[in-house]
Amino acid sequence: MTAHDVANPVKLTAVAAPDQPEVTPALEELYRGFERELLVPLWTEIGDLMPSSPRSRAVPHLWRWRNLIELAARAGDLVAVGRGGERRAIALANPSLGGRPFATPTLWAAIQYLMPGEDAPEHRHTQHAFRFIVEGSGVWTVVGGDPVPMNRGDFLPQAGWNWHAHHNATEQPMAWIDGLDIPFQYANEAQFFEFGRDEISDAERITPEYSRSERLWGRPGLRPVSATGASAGSPLLAYKWVHTDAALDDQLALEREGYGGTVEPGHAAVRYTNPATGGDVLPTIRTEFHRVARGVETAPVRETGSSVYQVFDGSGTVTVGETSWTVARGDLFVVPSWQPFSARSEAGQSDSDSGALDLFRFCDAPIFEALHLDRSERTT
Amino acid sequence: MTAHDVANPVKLTAVAAPDQPEVTPALEELYRGFERELLVPLWTEIGDLMPSSPRSRAVPHLWRWRNLIELAARAGDLVAVGRGGERRAIALANPSLGGRPFATPTLWAAIQYLMPGEDAPEHRHTQHAFRFIVEGSGVWTVVGGDPVPMNRGDFLPQAGWNWHAHHNATEQPMAWIDGLDIPFQYANEAQFFEFGRDEISDAERITPEYSRSERLWGRPGLRPVSATGASAGSPLLAYKWVHTDAALDDQLALEREGYGGTVEPGHAAVRYTNPATGGDVLPTIRTEFHRVARGVETAPVRETGSSVYQVFDGSGTVTVGETSWTVARGDLFVVPSWQPFSARSEAGQSDSDSGALDLFRFCDAPIFEALHLDRSERTT
Amino acid sequence: MTAHDVANPVKLTAVAAPDQPEVTPALEELYRGFERELLVPLWTEIGDLMPSSPRSRAVPHLWRWRNLIELAARAGDLVAVGRGGERRAIALANPSLGGRPFATPTLWAAIQYLMPGEDAPEHRHTQHAFRFIVEGSGVWTVVGGDPVPMNRGDFLPQAGWNWHAHHNATEQPMAWIDGLDIPFQYANEAQFFEFGRDEISDAERITPEYSRSERLWGRPGLRPVSATGASAGSPLLAYKWVHTDAALDDQLALEREGYGGTVEPGHAAVRYTNPATGGDVLPTIRTEFHRVARGVETAPVRETGSSVYQVFDGSGTVTVGETSWTVARGDLFVVPSWQPFSARSEAGQSDSDSGALDLFRFCDAPIFEALHLDRSERTT
Amino acid sequence: MTAHDVANPVKLTAVAAPDQPEVTPALEELYRGFERELLVPLWTEIGDLMPSSPRSRAVPHLWRWRNLIELAARAGDLVAVGRGGERRAIALANPSLGGRPFATPTLWAAIQYLMPGEDAPEHRHTQHAFRFIVEGSGVWTVVGGDPVPMNRGDFLPQAGWNWHAHHNATEQPMAWIDGLDIPFQYANEAQFFEFGRDEISDAERITPEYSRSERLWGRPGLRPVSATGASAGSPLLAYKWVHTDAALDDQLALEREGYGGTVEPGHAAVRYTNPATGGDVLPTIRTEFHRVARGVETAPVRETGSSVYQVFDGSGTVTVGETSWTVARGDLFVVPSWQPFSARSEAGQSDSDSGALDLFRFCDAPIFEALHLDRSERTT
Repeated sequence: MTAHDVANPVKLTAVAAPDQPEVTPALEELYRGFERELLVPLWTEIGDLMPSSPRSRAVPHLWRWRNLIELAARAGDLVAVGRGGERRAIALANPSLGGRPFATPTLWAAIQYLMPGEDAPEHRHTQHAFRFIVEGSGVWTVVGGDPVPMNRGDFLPQAGWNWHAHHNATEQPMAWIDGLDIPFQYANEAQFFEFGRDEISDAERITPEYSRSERLWGRPGLRPVSATGASAGSPLLAYKWVHTDAALDDQLALEREGYGGTVEPGHAAVRYTNPATGGDVLPTIRTEFHRVARGVETAPVRETGSSVYQVFDGSGTVTVGETSWTVARGDLFVVPSWQPFSARSEAGQSDSDSGALDLFRFCDAPIFEALHLDRSERTT
Repeated sequence: MTAHDVANPVKLTAVAAPDQPEVTPALEELYRGFERELLVPLWTEIGDLMPSSPRSRAVPHLWRWRNLIELAARAGDLVAVGRGGERRAIALANPSLGGRPFATPTLWAAIQYLMPGEDAPEHRHTQHAFRFIVEGSGVWTVVGGDPVPMNRGDFLPQAGWNWHAHHNATEQPMAWIDGLDIPFQYANEAQFFEFGRDEISDAERITPEYSRSERLWGRPGLRPVSATGASAGSPLLAYKWVHTDAALDDQLALEREGYGGTVEPGHAAVRYTNPATGGDVLPTIRTEFHRVARGVETAPVRETGSSVYQVFDGSGTVTVGETSWTVARGDLFVVPSWQPFSARSEAGQSDSDSGALDLFRFCDAPIFEALHLDRSERTT
Repeated sequence: MTAHDVANPVKLTAVAAPDQPEVTPALEELYRGFERELLVPLWTEIGDLMPSSPRSRAVPHLWRWRNLIELAARAGDLVAVGRGGERRAIALANPSLGGRPFATPTLWAAIQYLMPGEDAPEHRHTQHAFRFIVEGSGVWTVVGGDPVPMNRGDFLPQAGWNWHAHHNATEQPMAWIDGLDIPFQYANEAQFFEFGRDEISDAERITPEYSRSERLWGRPGLRPVSATGASAGSPLLAYKWVHTDAALDDQLALEREGYGGTVEPGHAAVRYTNPATGGDVLPTIRTEFHRVARGVETAPVRETGSSVYQVFDGSGTVTVGETSWTVARGDLFVVPSWQPFSARSEAGQSDSDSGALDLFRFCDAPIFEALHLDRSERTT
Repeated sequence: MTAHDVANPVKLTAVAAPDQPEVTPALEELYRGFERELLVPLWTEIGDLMPSSPRSRAVPHLWRWRNLIELAARAGDLVAVGRGGERRAIALANPSLGGRPFATPTLWAAIQYLMPGEDAPEHRHTQHAFRFIVEGSGVWTVVGGDPVPMNRGDFLPQAGWNWHAHHNATEQPMAWIDGLDIPFQYANEAQFFEFGRDEISDAERITPEYSRSERLWGRPGLRPVSATGASAGSPLLAYKWVHTDAALDDQLALEREGYGGTVEPGHAAVRYTNPATGGDVLPTIRTEFHRVARGVETAPVRETGSSVYQVFDGSGTVTVGETSWTVARGDLFVVPSWQPFSARSEAGQSDSDSGALDLFRFCDAPIFEALHLDRSERTT
């Protein structure tokens, strides 16, 4: 029947209706007909396909940074980075997504590791990507020939179809996290990929303090008049920690002075945005930084769509659905669709000066908003 | 390690790099560590996840209308329609999507069947839907209390979260196709669903020639001043065949008169649009009607994203990738992402007056366009 | 001082402040300095420039159609139409706008008149324009080579920079009204103008029942797939009366049946929209048709921005600010910014079957909305 | 005839057509009829109203800062600032706009002056406004209770309908320029105005280094998550000189390093934007800062719409249409619609370190772009 050599995978159990499971020979024959013709009735599937609210196939899960970094370091010793494999990146595999390297149904999160002097070769792809650096420094990403340094707390968005490579200019290895929309583009089959040059040029191996993108786009509210139009991804290739940290501090300070600005009492948050549009830095991925002041617990909120968080600093307890973990620097965890999330900063355990719990977050909200599928609610 | 009782599904085969499959005990130990920690390296997966161009998991496939309608009629005899099962809808299952009722990775296509006098109960859901009628008449859909008649050639969009029910007011059974974004919302976990009233009222059982939506929104270029703002889905609930047919005829007539308007010589096409925005009728689904004049073959085109076509009239040959079928009224087929598609009208076999091949199409292009993932090209 | 030979026009009367009119020699000297340097203080002007709410320089005014048509006919006898003068158009001059041909500060309204067999030569300009026909038929406008017939009740938008000419194909003279944004573009100095061909071709002198634009764009909710993108002005060049009339009738019928759709009880209204965007047909001009049912009086509403109305059918009383007029077919009147407007249909005097008062309206609301300057309120 | 006591201002000279000035008694009678009925023919006006390209009523003109500041200082001695007069602001009156305080047909530009310890009382208005500071410091503007300090080079946008007042906290007088869209809103009659509190509170009299708006919105690419939606005007109330200066320096440095970023060789420029949208800071006014490197002459460019420039630093020659001036710090000049503008930095005369000519510019481009009336071209 089919033009391709695909074994017919349709296997059905006959039921007359959800509440009428009586099965006659005629009904059995009908279901065999469905199978032959590659058909599946709605009435046996509706509970799974059309639930009253999102029931995620993903589960909440936590990955400990100390384990990730240890395995990544061993991979640094044992596995070469080069053309073909492209990156020494090791991805989080949500335990209920069939062993695929998918943190959530839409998001990819990986630790990437580069040895001293190593290059990760140049390529480009339609998948949107970013880097976030929880510790270390010395690697830079060359984007379209523009070397962008990477240091603790920095955020580097990388919109699809830009050429990019990495280089470790130091004598220490360095790790960071990569976030991409690989699972989303895989599910929807939108991917293109191209190899670039095998070697980046010496001119690109300089290590400037500021990338050219920052020199053109990195001043608040100022855009180059020469830049006409707006691209789908941010032209600003680095969001340095000094600004993020100061913005969060100021929100909490304004709250103490009696003014608005925080999301809720003791909970400061900034969103990384494309300065050419004010919108998200990437078409499919939203990125934010949250600071939960010492002793504060955020209100549980659930949203359509999924998130990945990384603990940047401090310590505390995070709760996803019915699961809670005590977390520390570098730990990563996922929040599946429509599962309530809250975080509590635990002062006593904190190793940061302020006692605040600092969380980097990325999520797929731009997809849901663009398609009018976004919903959210506080659950208390 | 995980908070949920999920068996660890990560199973890996150790390789040092794509071109370095030499496996040492230390490397084996590293991969066992990856498995324990629910990690998967990119370098073993990149070929599958990041192909040079979209490689669809779906395959081209054709479902014959005569088989569908026969099975649907038998289901009419054997399977009750009512609360719980909700609809007597039987979905196309792409043979390479694991037996799931998914025509493509994003789209659901089903034949729905209603016996004389039957009601399909009221409900609403976030999934966006439409009906298209290839034959028959007499059923209407009640949308938010507005009865919308359904006749051959009519197209009825049904944006998410609108209450709706169906009623067969005649003494014949009737079939039509439903298109929805069920697979997309399933994959992304955005679904909400609510039951409505078990019975629709007598006042809703009248059978008007025009729905109220058409009386308010069905004149070209005119909108009610009382309607402020624009909803995500079209406020026009029926696009009657008379208009679609005339629009296609006029494009071909204009071409004969020496003017533009067709997509290419002999190939007329209209898109169903939301009159409040000029954009697609549904946030996630594009719907079009194509008319290929007698003896014409369309240029092969491939696009990111997938389509489902139904033959409305005429006959001819359609080619998807490397597969060709001779098609007739009612037949349904899928075009996976980035597979070239072309259609040829075959005059000799046609049972229509004009000899044209009339194709109804729906696809997921609005998702790709909203997220800047759309690409297309002619392949000749 | 100035590089141009312009007499210094600044003439000031010295005041120290609005409530301190004591004038010393030093103060006089200061004001003479202002004059010399071409300066004007805010404190003497603020009451005029920054009123607490808009105080229009225009006044409400009514022009009787019988007088307009009589003068236009006489101009038909005495004044040639041709290159240079371009159009036999005679514009309404608001009595408080200095004798300029400006109906309001932003809008131009004129009666245009064409004798049997006459042509008005082809040209194009950035000013946005439309035609509305209150009586007669037989003239058509050729837009970019597409002849568009004009009949009673038809509305023809004409976005800026389209080539256009008029031709009277009959043996009777014909009149209609032209609406443009001439005063707005004059004030803001955005105008370009070009002469076209002196003669339109024979091929353009055919008189089709439907323009090509209607054949491509004139079906509800359907757009040609070949049309990519959206232009600033509507691609649909004629909105025929049959649709407008039916849409208004249906709104009133739906109201009688117990449903929404009218603006307020007994007051139906449609807006002419660009089918490619759902927005206004012209970037600077909104056009609407209002039907006030027999015996109904609309609620007084005031808005920022100005309107021109033409009575299409029926009769009644209209009130603008503190002025009321009894109006009949063809009469034109203006509603200045922020002046309340209401209309009452007077059954006894009506010459239409329905007794309704039918009003065509155009206004500058798109300018105000685009710049976030729109406000409106009911005044009772 | 009219309901208002307005003398009929229509006065016409009879012509049969532009090229047929023969005047018969019948023609004279026709024109008297036009006058009586408040009508004006197009054919006598078309040359003025619909020119082949914009012919501005405004003329290029230059105001010398030394004269402005001297008159403003004298007004400081002689004219009180307070409720009613509201501001000690003295506006530029373009010599060909009838003595009205309009720099161009759409833009208001004034020098404002505040004596030591003085307050300018709180009010709000729909007119969009900004302040730019060419010299001095010590005044701050309180916007919605948020004190915003003002120093040389700072730019403070002030979107319509925000409460605001000024206070001079020092022992020196201070001057700055105000830019508003007063002429535009006056012509279009969109204005609302309200008085605020007569006294600002002590809590508002503190003088912070950074306004609260800067603490929330003043980091590059970061927005508070608590801020939902986007307002028509920028939420960032101050654009400090340090950022503007560095952005311009970096553009010129990047050019020297071989990269893009400048508008043309030696000509750096930034646009002040709303960080919530990436668009202009005000709905009707665009603001930019241009730096012309030592010895460079910019290419002449003309645009629809008008501009006002203030020289911030350096010296040189500016050319507007056929007029050229040698300019120095603080001088203000206007560029009418469609008049070519170019600037040349004259190193020898410069009093700045770099020898660059620094120009602050504001213009009405957002109006033209929103209405699709923008055009521009290089004239060499």
